[in-house]
Amino acid sequence: MAVEAENGNKQNGREIVLGRNVHTTCLEVTEPEANDEFTGDKEAYMASVLARYRKNLMERTQHHLGYPYNLDFDYGALGQLQHFSINNLGDPFIESNYGVHSRQFEVGVLDWFARLWEIEKSEYWGYITNCGTEGNLHGILVGREVFPDGILYASRDSHYSVFKAARMYRMDCVKVDCLVSGEIDCADFKVKLLANKDKPAIINVNIGTTVKGAVDDLDLVIQTLEESGFSQDRFYIHCDGALFGLMMPFVKRAPKVTFQKPIGSVSVSGHKFMGCPMPCGVQLTRMKHINVLSSNVEYLASRDATIMGSRNGHAPIFLWYTLNRKGYKGFQKEVQKCLRNAYYLKDRLRDAGH
Amino acid sequence: MAVEAENGNKQNGREIVLGRNVHTTCLEVTEPEANDEFTGDKEAYMASVLARYRKNLMERTQHHLGYPYNLDFDYGALGQLQHFSINNLGDPFIESNYGVHSRQFEVGVLDWFARLWEIEKSEYWGYITNCGTEGNLHGILVGREVFPDGILYASRDSHYSVFKAARMYRMDCVKVDCLVSGEIDCADFKVKLLANKDKPAIINVNIGTTVKGAVDDLDLVIQTLEESGFSQDRFYIHCDGALFGLMMPFVKRAPKVTFQKPIGSVSVSGHKFMGCPMPCGVQLTRMKHINVLSSNVEYLASRDATIMGSRNGHAPIFLWYTLNRKGYKGFQKEVQKCLRNAYYLKDRLRDAGH
Repeated sequence: MAVEAENGNKQNGREIVLGRNVHTTCLEVTEPEANDEFTGDKEAYMASVLARYRKNLMERTQHHLGYPYNLDFDYGALGQLQHFSINNLGDPFIESNYGVHSRQFEVGVLDWFARLWEIEKSEYWGYITNCGTEGNLHGILVGREVFPDGILYASRDSHYSVFKAARMYRMDCVKVDCLVSGEIDCADFKVKLLANKDKPAIINVNIGTTVKGAVDDLDLVIQTLEESGFSQDRFYIHCDGALFGLMMPFVKRAPKVTFQKPIGSVSVSGHKFMGCPMPCGVQLTRMKHINVLSSNVEYLASRDATIMGSRNGHAPIFLWYTLNRKGYKGFQKEVQKCLRNAYYLKDRLRDAGH
Repeated sequence: MAVEAENGNKQNGREIVLGRNVHTTCLEVTEPEANDEFTGDKEAYMASVLARYRKNLMERTQHHLGYPYNLDFDYGALGQLQHFSINNLGDPFIESNYGVHSRQFEVGVLDWFARLWEIEKSEYWGYITNCGTEGNLHGILVGREVFPDGILYASRDSHYSVFKAARMYRMDCVKVDCLVSGEIDCADFKVKLLANKDKPAIINVNIGTTVKGAVDDLDLVIQTLEESGFSQDRFYIHCDGALFGLMMPFVKRAPKVTFQKPIGSVSVSGHKFMGCPMPCGVQLTRMKHINVLSSNVEYLASRDATIMGSRNGHAPIFLWYTLNRKGYKGFQKEVQKCLRNAYYLKDRLRDAGH
């Protein structure tokens, strides 16, 4: 992240004035003039704008800190595909009428995640999303369709998209307290479950919160549900792994996310630890849940179980490429390196008296 | 579009069996082997997969027919930006903590559309979406937040994302009949409005339906609302211009979409007539409507009024580039060319006895 905002747009509590502040540096679109083709002035202007922007991006990229984005990538080999209009409309597993797609790459990536999260090919459904938010919107929507009168439970430190989903979907939402670490407080969770025993529970479990990086204890969440009298046919768990979903499998003694446990869905970002240069994410759920969400449409000849319609077909190719190159072991090495760096930073900060 | 589906996945009424048919041609992700770096076998395999895929894309692209996608683009100058992780998180008009963004291009594009649809810079809010569906999801959500007990009206030929929105948002939805042309039948609309006079109306107006390409008569829709006793403070109109939103301004005697009329929002696709090689769209609404939707969040230091969180920062640069190069007049020429081709095709078909 850029260490400070470019302008003086400060936060005061929850008050942010709609600033439209970028308008001052907005790059206006101008109509080409009749003689532009002859003089080449417009081309030269645009080339200079792009060159300056590239310089700015390089500078900003060098000072990228705080957001867990992996910038160690080299996608030169994919440049040849950039100019194709690749679109995976609708369901990844059903061919649509639109032929310029990358479903074969998408399904390969989904299968890799199915192996990671221990679910059979025939048992899962999923797709490559536009971002972590779409994964949460999808997982919570599936939960609501499975339990139309379910209550959404989420810790206060959950990503804002979880509360956005509750508002969009008109769901009752109960905020659960956090421990100092940022993890969900299962004692408070239990109190709130017992107060709402008549309604099914839809739970958002954080695999990495945004500010503290806290990981909710999935096993304790499940145990709390059972102790509170919620059998497996009366709860749905969505795991928001946008931030750490791809790091936890490689961390020793970390709570394991797996479909062997009674969870309904998992999502992860593709542009964070995986390093895709455009926002994307991976969303997996159980096949049995997806049927309640689906409807057929004439236009695409495709089942409509995604949130978005047209879907970026470039992102799956980036993910496929990086998974093939780095593999399970490559990600393991990168996680170990990140942890070593974090311990080193902690020790130096402690030495410096913090 | 590819003229036929690759496989035998036929539609029988509304029954599509979840086929997972692409699994047979799925490009599996394989773990790199220890000696791959030495032998280069994996690199060679991946290069050959990509080369075959590129050939396939070229072939498919040449047979692209039916979907109104503009493939006449040359974005070579933008190749230099491809490897940056550009992300316009949150609100386009408020700088977030994430510095590698393209908001200056995004706002330039939005301003261009604000001029096209006749709304002052200080009066509109908008953003570049992931696709036409996101525009509809946003426009209808804004309508619902403005009128929480409003009923959604949409013609039967509306895009499936409109009915998806109604289901997601738990809105009452009334389907309105169509004329033979595919346009909304305002006589039927009136009957249905009069039957629900106690509830505000949220209307989806189609600027180009998916199958017939019908354009609803915006002026007649507004007149019907007024005749049925709905004053401007009791209705919200979202214009779904995904397909023709950018063509209509250049067609003589076409109903004009403009914020000078009492509409609430307009959306258009960026990967169709504008020819962006990745799915995207443009969504514009009135500033006064957006405040009801917004909430602030600590994580991004940004106002959250979009559907998605992380947003592809490459798409705005493509749109900015193409608007600058083609301009208003360039699009006008392309629309005229499309119309000439359509008339020519119609005449030849008629000559051939169809």
